[in-house]
Amino acid sequence: MPERPQHSPLLTDLYELTMAAAYFENKFEALASFELFVRHLPPGRSFLLAAGLEQALEFLENFRFSEEDVEFLRRHPVFAHVSDGFFEYLRQLRFTGEVWAMPEGTLVFAEEPLVRVTAPIIEAQIVETFLLTSLTFQTLIATKAARVVQAAAGRGIVEFGSRRAHGPQAGVLAARAAYIGGCIGTSNVEAGIRYGIPTFGTLAHSFVMAFNDEGESFRAFQRVFPEHVVLLVDTYDTLAAIDKIIEMGLRPRGVRLDSGDLVELSKQVRRKLDAAGLTDTQIFASGDLNEMAISAALAGGAAIDVFGVGTELATSKDAPALGGVYKLVELEIGSERQYRAKFSPEKATYPGTKQVFRFRNQKGEFERDVIGRSGERFADAEELLACVMREGRRRQPSPALDAVQERAREQLASLPMRYRQLQNADQYPVEISRKLKALQEEVRSEVRQTKHRVIG
Amino acid sequence: MPERPQHSPLLTDLYELTMAAAYFENKFEALASFELFVRHLPPGRSFLLAAGLEQALEFLENFRFSEEDVEFLRRHPVFAHVSDGFFEYLRQLRFTGEVWAMPEGTLVFAEEPLVRVTAPIIEAQIVETFLLTSLTFQTLIATKAARVVQAAAGRGIVEFGSRRAHGPQAGVLAARAAYIGGCIGTSNVEAGIRYGIPTFGTLAHSFVMAFNDEGESFRAFQRVFPEHVVLLVDTYDTLAAIDKIIEMGLRPRGVRLDSGDLVELSKQVRRKLDAAGLTDTQIFASGDLNEMAISAALAGGAAIDVFGVGTELATSKDAPALGGVYKLVELEIGSERQYRAKFSPEKATYPGTKQVFRFRNQKGEFERDVIGRSGERFADAEELLACVMREGRRRQPSPALDAVQERAREQLASLPMRYRQLQNADQYPVEISRKLKALQEEVRSEVRQTKHRVIG
Repeated sequence: MPERPQHSPLLTDLYELTMAAAYFENKFEALASFELFVRHLPPGRSFLLAAGLEQALEFLENFRFSEEDVEFLRRHPVFAHVSDGFFEYLRQLRFTGEVWAMPEGTLVFAEEPLVRVTAPIIEAQIVETFLLTSLTFQTLIATKAARVVQAAAGRGIVEFGSRRAHGPQAGVLAARAAYIGGCIGTSNVEAGIRYGIPTFGTLAHSFVMAFNDEGESFRAFQRVFPEHVVLLVDTYDTLAAIDKIIEMGLRPRGVRLDSGDLVELSKQVRRKLDAAGLTDTQIFASGDLNEMAISAALAGGAAIDVFGVGTELATSKDAPALGGVYKLVELEIGSERQYRAKFSPEKATYPGTKQVFRFRNQKGEFERDVIGRSGERFADAEELLACVMREGRRRQPSPALDAVQERAREQLASLPMRYRQLQNADQYPVEISRKLKALQEEVRSEVRQTKHRVIG
Repeated sequence: MPERPQHSPLLTDLYELTMAAAYFENKFEALASFELFVRHLPPGRSFLLAAGLEQALEFLENFRFSEEDVEFLRRHPVFAHVSDGFFEYLRQLRFTGEVWAMPEGTLVFAEEPLVRVTAPIIEAQIVETFLLTSLTFQTLIATKAARVVQAAAGRGIVEFGSRRAHGPQAGVLAARAAYIGGCIGTSNVEAGIRYGIPTFGTLAHSFVMAFNDEGESFRAFQRVFPEHVVLLVDTYDTLAAIDKIIEMGLRPRGVRLDSGDLVELSKQVRRKLDAAGLTDTQIFASGDLNEMAISAALAGGAAIDVFGVGTELATSKDAPALGGVYKLVELEIGSERQYRAKFSPEKATYPGTKQVFRFRNQKGEFERDVIGRSGERFADAEELLACVMREGRRRQPSPALDAVQERAREQLASLPMRYRQLQNADQYPVEISRKLKALQEEVRSEVRQTKHRVIG
């Protein structure tokens, strides 16, 4: 089938469009503010690292309903009674709203808005699905990457998971998010051409096996990549392969272990290489690794310089979904401002547009966050949400990906270790401001009255 | 940035391209056969449902190295010593190979090849990453969908998970795979326009909350979608909302419960609706559902007609990755045929190209599979791998998605319940043919000799 546009507005749930039609047909006009946040951190996570904003903003700037899209919707049985006016509206539709967001690479905690959208209600509503999928997936992977990188304690991590990612495009996005989280690069070449991420590759067992002789395969590879070759040594017998490399006089940049006891093997390989004068030859390791395995290997004294991490990283395997939500918090109908919140026990939300304030202690470390009303001011606190889009256009070019990675690095370094250790981390303190609590109480009592009126 | 092509050949791991360069520069020419299979079923799975072949074949037919792709690689430091001839080769490269595959919708078990590619070794190698990500992701989701659909015991399942999928394109592919697995449709509109999958949508809490009065929001929605409206009733108080619908004289096609005790609520809602003569109004349920929750709800007597399943389905949350591998099994170098296999204890593979034979018992149920050598014949067994591509072109148009769904339904119905019950299912018997075992022994002893020669 012909290619569909990357920023198709049909990359959404149908109910966004049925709600749009209902607003349109009922002439319900309002400026709406929605906030995107995560109610609870996933199991095994004590922080999140924001990522995915760039793709969300690209979508907001570029989505257009094509004639094909409009015709598809017009023929959909659910829209049988919707007027031509709505379809004409879709044809003209551009996103004209304002977006506040945490920059990519910012640490974020439960209940803190990552993004706030203020726009005519139809525009703000129909972008929900794309924003959620873009922000929550990359945030999930950037977070996992940050944990893996932390476990590696200064050794490089290369993201290797494209083959296990949730489809080819998920692999590219995972590579981007993993780089934000601190990986030195990826195996995904498309991520290299698209985002300028350094790409790494060695060779597969199939290459070694294609030759009748392992040494022959090594020599064939080394010839072509004299400076960059990383030889895969576990196809038959790891230590025997190292001996062969030494006997053949090869001087690879690295060797890769992909199976077996990485601690013992890496120590033995290091000794052999060093004894032969190959002290510059690095040891790469891969094979079902994650932050716990890396941490354990290094604690055991593994002599590994670079880790390749695949499936666990590209799918955030132990926590493969982030429960992001996108909630209506405020409406302007004519000149009237109305607040919205949910008050059910499990799913309570705070009304009104918000700002997140981050306080540092005297050592410059993050001490606590306060979620307050937008417009509140706290001396000495950093305001994490910034206006990134106005009238549907970005206010400034996006930061380079290296700058995003650097921001993430600084943010993580500022978070005391007790809040980010891999296991049993303390919960970072996030408070609600007095003014936001007061607003919640005000809205709650109004809703009680309204519900009483409606139901009674 | 400008759109990148959907079938970019850079949607691959860099090592596929370094191996390609090494084969080219060493003039290593061979016809290679690779097989794609899953070594072990993921935890909690007793079968897999093959999906994703269509996107893999589209890729094989359409990938092309553009000038931009070639220039990117040429400037990559790793290729510094690679000759112009290689880049010229990439410019001309088309997939010219042969592909055998299990049709989408086929039940598949551990170690059974889903796909076999036979092509010049460079072509067969560089498509590895795309084939793996395409086949394993959709297979994972189709399998999860089959389990959820089985739990629903005849009630409809709609896939709702786009917002939690691994990026926008993963949502579309998840919708496709979920439909193959037996869902009646999806919320993802792009999946509707691309694949003709029925799309469903109701309304969000935000719509109800945008109005000052819940009843007003219901009336506004019902006006626009008189025949299709499914009202969301849990924004404030589910039973009160049902009373309101009845009092207002609305006759929605359905009501949706999204929180609370689905068993008790659905029974009470059903009673209220029936008492008011709204016997045709269906009850939809959603909210963190999966196959176990659905099974438990129905066992408890829940009066639910349609389930919306999101995160758990679109990410296969309890088993979010499938360990698919793509292994070199055979080479033709000149007129010589060589077999390849791995013999390490954890990662042993069988050499040579294979066929999967499925036997039925007298009741027509699946009884056992035999993995044999390609070209073997077994009376009364179905051969599951069929030739779908020759010289790089498909041999016939792909089956319609509805036919794929129907095949999946028939396959699942043919699998005795003990092999597909949601928990503690028996392991379906998969045997290795005598001839394949004999080949393995033959290759093993050859490799022993070779290794002895090489190492000794």
